[in-house]
Amino acid sequence: MRINTLAVVGVGLLGGSVGWAARRRGVADRVVGVDRDPAVLREALGLGILDEACADLGVAGGAEVVVLCTPVDCIAAQVLAVAGAGRPGTLLTDVGSTKAAIVRAVEGKLPAGVGFVGSHPLAGSEKQGPGHASPDLFQGRQVVLTPTSRTGEEDLARAAAFWQALGAWVSVMEPEQHDRAMALTSHLPHLVASALAGILPADLGGLTASGFRDTTRTAGGDPGLWAAILEANREGVLEALAGLGGQLERFRQALAAGDRAALEALLLQGKKVRDSLPSQVKQGTTNNTNPTNNEEKEE
Amino acid sequence: MRINTLAVVGVGLLGGSVGWAARRRGVADRVVGVDRDPAVLREALGLGILDEACADLGVAGGAEVVVLCTPVDCIAAQVLAVAGAGRPGTLLTDVGSTKAAIVRAVEGKLPAGVGFVGSHPLAGSEKQGPGHASPDLFQGRQVVLTPTSRTGEEDLARAAAFWQALGAWVSVMEPEQHDRAMALTSHLPHLVASALAGILPADLGGLTASGFRDTTRTAGGDPGLWAAILEANREGVLEALAGLGGQLERFRQALAAGDRAALEALLLQGKKVRDSLPSQVKQGTTNNTNPTNNEEKEE
Repeated sequence: MRINTLAVVGVGLLGGSVGWAARRRGVADRVVGVDRDPAVLREALGLGILDEACADLGVAGGAEVVVLCTPVDCIAAQVLAVAGAGRPGTLLTDVGSTKAAIVRAVEGKLPAGVGFVGSHPLAGSEKQGPGHASPDLFQGRQVVLTPTSRTGEEDLARAAAFWQALGAWVSVMEPEQHDRAMALTSHLPHLVASALAGILPADLGGLTASGFRDTTRTAGGDPGLWAAILEANREGVLEALAGLGGQLERFRQALAAGDRAALEALLLQGKKVRDSLPSQVKQGTTNNTNPTNNEEKEE
Repeated sequence: MRINTLAVVGVGLLGGSVGWAARRRGVADRVVGVDRDPAVLREALGLGILDEACADLGVAGGAEVVVLCTPVDCIAAQVLAVAGAGRPGTLLTDVGSTKAAIVRAVEGKLPAGVGFVGSHPLAGSEKQGPGHASPDLFQGRQVVLTPTSRTGEEDLARAAAFWQALGAWVSVMEPEQHDRAMALTSHLPHLVASALAGILPADLGGLTASGFRDTTRTAGGDPGLWAAILEANREGVLEALAGLGGQLERFRQALAAGDRAALEALLLQGKKVRDSLPSQVKQGTTNNTNPTNNEEKEE
């Protein structure tokens, strides 16, 4: 895939990585970054992530592909704003960690000829800003696309080709299915990491080792971004939280009763799932998925 | 510190690392490994972790220093067995993740001239066996010693010198204080990681990214070892679990009520603690603690 102009709205870790990967791989002739923070734009220009920088969202309308990399509660309104200034053939996508609210808010409201396909790259970190961006962030990583019945096939194919050109592999799910899955695979783990860290008395920090540090790593993420994600997936997260509460209660009962067999069985249940996780990064698989096949890929 | 014979009982990841570090650093002229599994002993000999291997626990009684690296529910009985065969001047210590039950079971029951000091190196991993041992596992890491009012000063000083000679730095706490702290810094995080992994439906494994993987890494640990640890610290873990339950309930209420400010405040509380954790590994600090100062060190 080769496009003329790529616009990245929100030049943080993810947006910076999108722009940088597109420049480095020759996917776009020109990468324009849009951010309301001039310091962020200066930093991204200095790092070679962008060709041009601008504070005005309207500029993105002139691009062939626009990727929204802003907080999940800003994306839908920005998609509609950019689409209003877009030309026929403009493709918009995003990197939001929740999909249903965004996709449904945009659905049916785009001008003719302007397409939107929701995307969620399963890549990132608790760190923030273009200084933590990487042109290889998407290499071998999965990007979930969440088309609806109203998404054009060509738009879906172009969105898939775009992410594959950045080194990712693509899977396709319904937006609501995506959000329910992410409640368990991402949003609940984040909430729990934050809760675990939050209850640690300050004077015990020096007694933590790699177990605590890994279990709570994501708690270092931005509270504003994550509050928006949790709220955008409220029902899914509440359901996942209830499921965790049930499992914690089973642990509590086994421990209180001194039931070693039950305790080992619960620990074994967790170990089996953890040990069975497929490799997170695929090497050399940038074109292995038919994006019109509406099922999750786990190859 | 330089000793004649070191015996390591239980030649897994930790025991193997103790023996290997002692050989590599010239801390012991001879390292004897004791394990009931001949395959483990062969593997450790092949890796150069041990000078000699033996299945008989009694052999450890002839060593100058003996380190018990077996499951926490086996250590106290093995300390007493080895001590019964020990000579005056023999120092016993261990690497158990819980301390009160072990230390109190041993206290007052040792033959004259044989000393025991409870130790807990804050190092390790979810992996098992001598194949995952490292001669540098303790480099810059903290080892918590848990003497009681009946521990001899010389034994405490020797135990501290031993761990420092392996590259660690030493802190000193009461056994019960250690266990209450570890309930929050290690045992509860392990239980939660296991619960989070355990409730993930098998078909969602392919949708996990680094957040889920880090948060649940420790769930890959051995269920038998960890059931014993959780039971040995039952009261502390139950108390920590109740504390976590309260924090999760605060998250649930904020989320259910759509209270963004409360949600952000909870996430910020976790982030502040996580961001404030001191560096886990100290470089070049092998002799920075006075082991007779009965307080936790956080330098």
